[in-house]
Amino acid sequence: MKNLKRKPEESPRHDYRPRPLPFRTPLNGISDRALKNHHDKLYAGYVTKKNEIENRLEELGRAIVTGEVDGGGNPTYGELRGLKDGETYAVNGVYLHEWYFKILGGDGKSENARELVDALSSIYGSAEGFIKYFSECAMCARGWTVLAWDTRESRLWIYNSDAHNQGGVWGALPIIVLDVYEHAYFMDYGADRKAYLKAFWKNFNWAAANDLFKRASSIRL
Amino acid sequence: MKNLKRKPEESPRHDYRPRPLPFRTPLNGISDRALKNHHDKLYAGYVTKKNEIENRLEELGRAIVTGEVDGGGNPTYGELRGLKDGETYAVNGVYLHEWYFKILGGDGKSENARELVDALSSIYGSAEGFIKYFSECAMCARGWTVLAWDTRESRLWIYNSDAHNQGGVWGALPIIVLDVYEHAYFMDYGADRKAYLKAFWKNFNWAAANDLFKRASSIRL
Amino acid sequence: MKNLKRKPEESPRHDYRPRPLPFRTPLNGISDRALKNHHDKLYAGYVTKKNEIENRLEELGRAIVTGEVDGGGNPTYGELRGLKDGETYAVNGVYLHEWYFKILGGDGKSENARELVDALSSIYGSAEGFIKYFSECAMCARGWTVLAWDTRESRLWIYNSDAHNQGGVWGALPIIVLDVYEHAYFMDYGADRKAYLKAFWKNFNWAAANDLFKRASSIRL
Amino acid sequence: MKNLKRKPEESPRHDYRPRPLPFRTPLNGISDRALKNHHDKLYAGYVTKKNEIENRLEELGRAIVTGEVDGGGNPTYGELRGLKDGETYAVNGVYLHEWYFKILGGDGKSENARELVDALSSIYGSAEGFIKYFSECAMCARGWTVLAWDTRESRLWIYNSDAHNQGGVWGALPIIVLDVYEHAYFMDYGADRKAYLKAFWKNFNWAAANDLFKRASSIRL
Repeated sequence: MKNLKRKPEESPRHDYRPRPLPFRTPLNGISDRALKNHHDKLYAGYVTKKNEIENRLEELGRAIVTGEVDGGGNPTYGELRGLKDGETYAVNGVYLHEWYFKILGGDGKSENARELVDALSSIYGSAEGFIKYFSECAMCARGWTVLAWDTRESRLWIYNSDAHNQGGVWGALPIIVLDVYEHAYFMDYGADRKAYLKAFWKNFNWAAANDLFKRASSIRL
Repeated sequence: MKNLKRKPEESPRHDYRPRPLPFRTPLNGISDRALKNHHDKLYAGYVTKKNEIENRLEELGRAIVTGEVDGGGNPTYGELRGLKDGETYAVNGVYLHEWYFKILGGDGKSENARELVDALSSIYGSAEGFIKYFSECAMCARGWTVLAWDTRESRLWIYNSDAHNQGGVWGALPIIVLDVYEHAYFMDYGADRKAYLKAFWKNFNWAAANDLFKRASSIRL
Repeated sequence: MKNLKRKPEESPRHDYRPRPLPFRTPLNGISDRALKNHHDKLYAGYVTKKNEIENRLEELGRAIVTGEVDGGGNPTYGELRGLKDGETYAVNGVYLHEWYFKILGGDGKSENARELVDALSSIYGSAEGFIKYFSECAMCARGWTVLAWDTRESRLWIYNSDAHNQGGVWGALPIIVLDVYEHAYFMDYGADRKAYLKAFWKNFNWAAANDLFKRASSIRL
Repeated sequence: MKNLKRKPEESPRHDYRPRPLPFRTPLNGISDRALKNHHDKLYAGYVTKKNEIENRLEELGRAIVTGEVDGGGNPTYGELRGLKDGETYAVNGVYLHEWYFKILGGDGKSENARELVDALSSIYGSAEGFIKYFSECAMCARGWTVLAWDTRESRLWIYNSDAHNQGGVWGALPIIVLDVYEHAYFMDYGADRKAYLKAFWKNFNWAAANDLFKRASSIRL
């Protein structure tokens, strides 16, 4: 909810807008047709649902707070439950895709990512060591693999996720987000996820990831 | 993984230690027997499993990076998959419980939480309005309800979770974490979750939550 | 849906009724207070939600078939999605509890379960061998452990489930259903699930399980 | 497990074999490339994992029963837990795909499915009414939509599933299984699931579904 004090008719509308792809196409090994479906249809669809859910929560939340309706909160089924469940699916679906698109569009060269490469090397021996291990983790996931700055322990850590709203770690700030949903690669590679991972690293934007790393790792809670 | 450059025998051991309860018992309406099971057995058990998983990942990750073993990454079944799946369950199980215990042990009075109360009031009309809505959300969840600072949109937001590793939102920093797993209340209240929620707010530590809010909301990524 | 040909006002109502406990209390080591919460509140609550969901699906389904409403089917969020998701949770919540209560209330003696004991012995060496292995599986589950007749392969098999609507195997007919949700044992045993499992077997009704086994295993599809 | 009485070296090996596609390709609107990936790689991969898991369970189960190893059953992480979790994913992945392929390869004409069409018409008004509603349900699912004979209530019912081992209903015998995983349609249709559903019905084998219906609905437990 955004602001209960305003009158309902003034209630702020949630109108999150899809961000355009932050790079020029075509990519190297990921087709424009695949990207168009991924960004223009799927990602944009999550944005639409996020807004729909949050606008309805705005109304329902107001009614609960003012006592107009009895929330009837129930963990098996109910409108509020359905909204709150769909919300984490839509919100993560939006955020994760934005982080994912953010670190695409590069040339796979790590020269401009000194801080991140240093940090990864101290853990995995080298950037290549990291890529090898991260890719192996990505072969095991059903949704996403995420290198994150885990603020709870001030550590750089890889987490796996099986769905937009499964596997998320509270307090973790994403640095490298890799989509391994079937929608990310089936059009170009069929079931050959390995080939897709190779294409991912070819288009990886190290500078963008380095920027995310520098900002996230400076945080101390 | 922590540091591949060291020799295996020097490999840093993960030995996260359970934190003691940050308050004096007894609480008001949550029995010592329930707390003992919750903290000393369940929470401590998640810590043990977190260490076990991360230490095994240390070995397995090293072997993957050096090529000693073929990771054999597979999204249906395999050791790496099992570890990475269990990891988000254990890690969130540890972190969320620590955030939860952190904001217990208070007297439910919000005098010393001006910043948080102001922020909540601007959204929900008043602290009471917030408590009403947050509690309703908690009636709908199967695991946790979390008021978080969502760094992606710089907003204070309530998210619901159905299990330790379900419903987590990437980039979200918890402020108020409420455990609604059956283990949190069945011993004292049976299926009467509403009674447990009342007890939660009676023991709520507003000052601790305010502190988390001030630190989290100051972050700009 | 039940019958679209009738007029809406004649539409059959779903009014599944909670079944009473099929045994006399008290059980041996499972308190009446725990059973009352388990059966009268939780199980009965699933029945209520099952009816609520199915009655609403009756209306919504009719409107979709007749074209009054555009279903707007969407895998992220929507009323139909929420209903269909909640439905498997409620329906399994009802069925599994009924199978679970069905095989309680016994004395743990297997004399009157020749066919089932023979079948289990041929697989696990003895009824005790089965109990040992089944119990170990139950220590690993988050929801249910089920010995089922798997009609797809005509085999007796143990499957684990982490939630009412997770882990279910299509075509599997339950024989022995064991509830390991925290609600089943926290009141009596806290986190000590092992003690609960011992109590379960003490109250196990072998004759009832044998009856289920004979009927299920005679099926050939 | 299969047979503990035999010696380990005689232990029966699980060697479930992938079934060939039960129809001649090409289908109408589902490309051979998509089918090849779906059947030869994904489905066959689930069969491989099912065998791997069950063979390992055979060994581990034997060791647990004989007391050679302490199962160490734990609901957060452990080998037995990982196997039992992966098992329902692999087993359902195998079974559901077989049921799905079973009812493809037809011409979409319902003349030879009198019993099933009659049953569906009595519920949904007509076969077309059923197709409309079932398809709408399929637009809401993340994994599968299943028309099943629900033996618990002797009813024909549609259930939705979000993953191979989510949404399964105990005691339900599948009649019409529709795969809506992204792997089923992304290659041919991108995000346009509606177009895929149309293709599904064009290739639907009503006679095969009718046969499944007659056998399942004759069962009384």
